[in-house]
Formats: sequence, C-alpha cells, structure tokens
Amino acid sequence: MKRKSYSQMNCPIARSLEEIGEWWSILLLRDAFHGMTRFDEFETSLGIAPNMLTKRLATLVENGLMEKRPYSAKPLRHEYILTPKGTDFYSVLLTLVSWGNRHVFDKNEQPILLSDRESGEIFEPELYNPKTLKPINSRSVKIVAGPGATENTHERLAFRAKKTAERNAESNTGKQQ
Amino acid sequence: MKRKSYSQMNCPIARSLEEIGEWWSILLLRDAFHGMTRFDEFETSLGIAPNMLTKRLATLVENGLMEKRPYSAKPLRHEYILTPKGTDFYSVLLTLVSWGNRHVFDKNEQPILLSDRESGEIFEPELYNPKTLKPINSRSVKIVAGPGATENTHERLAFRAKKTAERNAESNTGKQQ
Repeated sequence: MKRKSYSQMNCPIARSLEEIGEWWSILLLRDAFHGMTRFDEFETSLGIAPNMLTKRLATLVENGLMEKRPYSAKPLRHEYILTPKGTDFYSVLLTLVSWGNRHVFDKNEQPILLSDRESGEIFEPELYNPKTLKPINSRSVKIVAGPGATENTHERLAFRAKKTAERNAESNTGKQQ
Repeated sequence: MKRKSYSQMNCPIARSLEEIGEWWSILLLRDAFHGMTRFDEFETSLGIAPNMLTKRLATLVENGLMEKRPYSAKPLRHEYILTPKGTDFYSVLLTLVSWGNRHVFDKNEQPILLSDRESGEIFEPELYNPKTLKPINSRSVKIVAGPGATENTHERLAFRAKKTAERNAESNTGKQQ
C-alpha cells in the first residue's frame, strides 16, 4: 500500500520524514553512525532486499544526507558517507535512544547507554533552551508561526491555542487532575 | 510490501520505531500535541484511510502512548489522549522540527518556530548533557554497552570503535580533511 506523500505538507516534521524516505531508513542512518559505509554492511545489519536498499541509499544521497564516493577503482566500488546534514541527524537518533531507554526497556535491560567521551560518565541527553540554559518540556515551549507559515499553519496553531486554553480551564475547575 | 519487524532488535531506536508502528504515526503524535483527540480530527489532518487510522491508533493505545477514553455516553464516542509516555515523545518531535528547520527549509520559508512560553523569545532547542550543562554533538557522545547488551551489541560497538580509530588515524596523516 503506497502511503501519502508528505512533500506538500508545510511542516518540518513531515518534510523531514519525507527526506529520510522510509521508516527503516532511520536505522540506515543509525548504522552509518555506527561506522558502516558499505552496501554489504548495511545489507547484513538490516536484512533488507538489495533493490530496496539501493533505492533508499539513493534517496538519502539525493536529499543530501549521504554522499556516494568510490573507494576502489578496479573494480569500481562505492561507499556511503554521512554529509554534515546527515551527521546533524544524530540529535534525532539520540532522543530516540533516550525515549526508548526510558519507555521501552526496563532499567536493567537497556542495550546501550550514552557517556561523555571526556569523563566517561553516563548521562541522558536532554533538550535545553541554549539561551536560558534551562531544560525544556512540552509545556515550556510554544509553537509559533514562522516566516513560511501558510493559512493552514495558522489554522493549526489557532486550534492548538484553543485546545490548550480549554484544557487549562478544565484543570482550573477541577474537572481534570 | 511488508517490512521486517524490529521487535527482536536489541536497540532502543529500532524498538521505539516498532512501538510507534508506522512512519506517519509520528504525524499522528504531532497532531495529538497540536491538541487533536478525535478520530475525525486525525482523519482530516492526515488524509488516511479510516481502517488504517483505527489500526494505528490501536497500536499507540496498546503500546501505552495514547489512552482511549469515552467523551460521550449516548452515542458512545471515544477520544485519544497522550499518556505520559506519549507526551515524552515531544523531545523526538522537537528535534525533528529543528533538523527540518535547519536542513529542509530556507530561513525565510520555515513554517513554524519554537519560542519560550515565558519570555516569548524564539530559540532552537539543543541537546545538552544535564550533568555538565554543555551541548553535546556527535563527537562528544560515546555509546557504551548497557546492562541489556547482547553479543551482537558488543560486536556493533567494537565495529564502531575500530572505524572511529581508523578515521582518526586517517585525519592525522592528512588523508582526509
């Protein structure tokens, strides 16, 4: 079943997902962070049909997340290297690691942890506002219209504001905890 | 084409993706953050076939990201509310927003921006190490084996360490910039 394209959605989440291409392409990017660069390395790791893997690597190259370059002239062989745009995706991967470690695995079952390369100390990354040096959460952030907001964006934001106000009113009158 | 299940992969990224269920379920979570709770709201927003939407909402309920609760008795109608586990997914959504704003949209085309709810000031969230209060990047983080690491996890980490060492050796001898 072909899914709907998100390329026309005026939303950075939808458009990011569109550029990555497919669910398991996130695992492809994960493997690239793990140092994999060659077709057979990705193939073994992901158990993906070669024609699908070829297609998805091409999508990542086309959208500038990976660069294809030769590592052998005879026979001609290519490897796939993360570009700065692809490398910057580590932030999404790390928040997925954190969320998974918090909510999918029990404490004593977590397969990997993150440590500070300098001190070796284990830590859980958190999203901060670099201007205030405070951690942010779902309530401290407000989503506002950017320069490229369309009518639909404004409608969504108005809907959100209305719902937030309703929820706050409900909590104040004790209808919700 | 049915994709491979990630449920047996001992990896927080793969298992998180598995729990969410499907590529566009991320947009479902996004819409829930936008205040949507009802079937027809999600349906209109995503343009998804009703049977697929039913299935995906059920997956999110089953995996504890959403709670289904009645909002009307006659006729019986349900709404879908983010649980704490679902709400905590905002960190992944915000890093996707940031990545998209940095790499997919031009500065003057960004549809939404994030602002501090108190001050109203626009900011870009960044991942910090809360212990050192320093921003982290792909080079300051080391991935280490957790208590649930399997033989395969250790192999992956050893592969990564070997590749990192090779890359560093290459840069030191000037073969790469």
